[in-house]
Amino acid sequence: MGNFTIEAQSGRARAGRLRLARGEVETPIFMPVGTAGTVKAVTPAELEGLGAQIILGNTYHLWLRPGLEVLAAHGGLHSFMRWSRPILTDSGGYQVFSLRALSRISEEGVEFRSHLDGTPLRLTPELSMQIQATLGSDIAMAFDQCPPADAPFALHEEALARTTRWAARCLSAPHAPGQLRFGIIQGGVHLDLRRRHLAEIAALGFDGYALGGLAVGETPEQMYQVLEAVADELPRTCARYLMGVGTPRDLLEAIGSGIDLFDCVMPTRNARNGQLFTAQGKLVIGNARYKTDLAPVEEGCLCPTCAGGFTRAYLSHLFRAGEILYSRLATLHNLHFYLSLVRSARQAILEDRYAAFARNHFSLGTTY
Amino acid sequence: MGNFTIEAQSGRARAGRLRLARGEVETPIFMPVGTAGTVKAVTPAELEGLGAQIILGNTYHLWLRPGLEVLAAHGGLHSFMRWSRPILTDSGGYQVFSLRALSRISEEGVEFRSHLDGTPLRLTPELSMQIQATLGSDIAMAFDQCPPADAPFALHEEALARTTRWAARCLSAPHAPGQLRFGIIQGGVHLDLRRRHLAEIAALGFDGYALGGLAVGETPEQMYQVLEAVADELPRTCARYLMGVGTPRDLLEAIGSGIDLFDCVMPTRNARNGQLFTAQGKLVIGNARYKTDLAPVEEGCLCPTCAGGFTRAYLSHLFRAGEILYSRLATLHNLHFYLSLVRSARQAILEDRYAAFARNHFSLGTTY
Repeated sequence: MGNFTIEAQSGRARAGRLRLARGEVETPIFMPVGTAGTVKAVTPAELEGLGAQIILGNTYHLWLRPGLEVLAAHGGLHSFMRWSRPILTDSGGYQVFSLRALSRISEEGVEFRSHLDGTPLRLTPELSMQIQATLGSDIAMAFDQCPPADAPFALHEEALARTTRWAARCLSAPHAPGQLRFGIIQGGVHLDLRRRHLAEIAALGFDGYALGGLAVGETPEQMYQVLEAVADELPRTCARYLMGVGTPRDLLEAIGSGIDLFDCVMPTRNARNGQLFTAQGKLVIGNARYKTDLAPVEEGCLCPTCAGGFTRAYLSHLFRAGEILYSRLATLHNLHFYLSLVRSARQAILEDRYAAFARNHFSLGTTY
Repeated sequence: MGNFTIEAQSGRARAGRLRLARGEVETPIFMPVGTAGTVKAVTPAELEGLGAQIILGNTYHLWLRPGLEVLAAHGGLHSFMRWSRPILTDSGGYQVFSLRALSRISEEGVEFRSHLDGTPLRLTPELSMQIQATLGSDIAMAFDQCPPADAPFALHEEALARTTRWAARCLSAPHAPGQLRFGIIQGGVHLDLRRRHLAEIAALGFDGYALGGLAVGETPEQMYQVLEAVADELPRTCARYLMGVGTPRDLLEAIGSGIDLFDCVMPTRNARNGQLFTAQGKLVIGNARYKTDLAPVEEGCLCPTCAGGFTRAYLSHLFRAGEILYSRLATLHNLHFYLSLVRSARQAILEDRYAAFARNHFSLGTTY
């Protein structure tokens, strides 16, 4: 038996169960992002209270700081940050290529400079897997080359071929006991490249598969077209992960196309920047109208912030005063919104009413 | 029966019980400072978990932002910030006089400019009491003039006389139902002025008494001399409050002189700045040695941070990365340290061993 079981389908949407070294994850699921060894502003206990089942850690950031020696001395990332449920780590590739002005790509790997202190560094598929083994994540991602969405076709072809060779090297490298390895499919918005790469990566036999290189500059409609065409062609018996996506509507579209896992900084980053998610759309807490608003962020919301009796006026005040408590309360609300959304989506799939759920979930014209 | 009962004495140190509108407070007690409607970085639930019995709110800051309209609409500060236990509010005087370059003092009150936007403002004894009534605090402080420690004797005399007249006006002003009013004794380090002012303020018949104008520039030894001479001359049957003080040693010295209540930003502010309190002295988390230190901040500490398994290395990492979670975990530890210290002091008084407790509590030569 594999690591993933499909419990129900509703159209292409899947409700599944992913078995990992540190527990099972019910899909579809959203993974809060813990870039530097903490999901910003919240504790592991709070994440558990919100029902988070798995979080994401960033290989690049943790490699640079605190570094592998400190992480190894703690016995890995779980113990370092005191989070006992599953963790997925990215490969570091996306971060390195975000610094592409500073990077030199060769067959061996990528040379670049630390964003912290300018130190010259080199990351290879083998080193990425070694770092992820030291972090001890439950899911390690293959080291890939992620070109920008608007890169020339030839660059996409070159990146795909290299990513396939790197993927094979990742599978040959040592990994932590019980750690799953997921392959990444690139190809931008070119459906033919996506399908060619999918065939190459799937042939390598990973434990799960991800779509990379989306939400990197293309329009939502372009992304939805790729998902519509390709998501359900990913191996059916494995978990499918859409990396770095996205808005609430993105999640519902992708789930409808057959995606199971998501991560995105949007709920946490937007919270700190003053944007709160509600079923009626985005609430910008800095707007003057909220200064005297005695309502919770969202009526009926069960998050610790809304259920705790904190008013929009209080959050508005904390936001204006630059108080840390604002970031805490806002982050709790937004993460609750995302985690509730995927829980509701899962329930709708189990009851085979996903299409109606996705259609009706947001008020007409709601934008995020 | 008054609002304060002495349960035990050990030397001059007192263990008491202060009855307030929203509950009883066991003294000696430390009040975490919630300047702008939040004790920085922590929630009301966390404060309760730490055993905080009463917190301080700042009249000046809350008057300027969010303003009285918003606070009144919430029914007061307790409901606004979701803290149901007692609150003491200062009078705003100290903040206004900290802006003394901008202020003009008259018999009526003080004119100054908002530190937020420069708006010209005027604060009077009556307005301070009106704001504190709107905040609905359990203890309101009289509006006083606080000269710097090194002010000329004549200025001290003038400030004292005015503070006495203002104190009488505060008592004549309306206050919230059940709200106690505390008078403030000034006089710098001049014992004769302190005694003269004490007699004047005590004659007005407040519900409790505070020493103001200490820890404003004089040496610790000068402050201890004032406490040694004056603290136990404050009315015995009322709670005694030393405003804005101080280090752990300051607290133990003051308790030994007969003080019951304290507030200070030190545990919260120092936490955010990287200074953690331990029985062995100050731990500066930014020091390189802690990068790889797997120990908790303090062995055996029962605070959520130490008991939660977070290591010095993890806190060091979060501090360097500028993570909000650092401020949270550090604040919890430091507040626990202060609240445990006064709890231990109270227990020592109840067992009539306070002098030995204070002498032995800190390692020889420990400095904060």
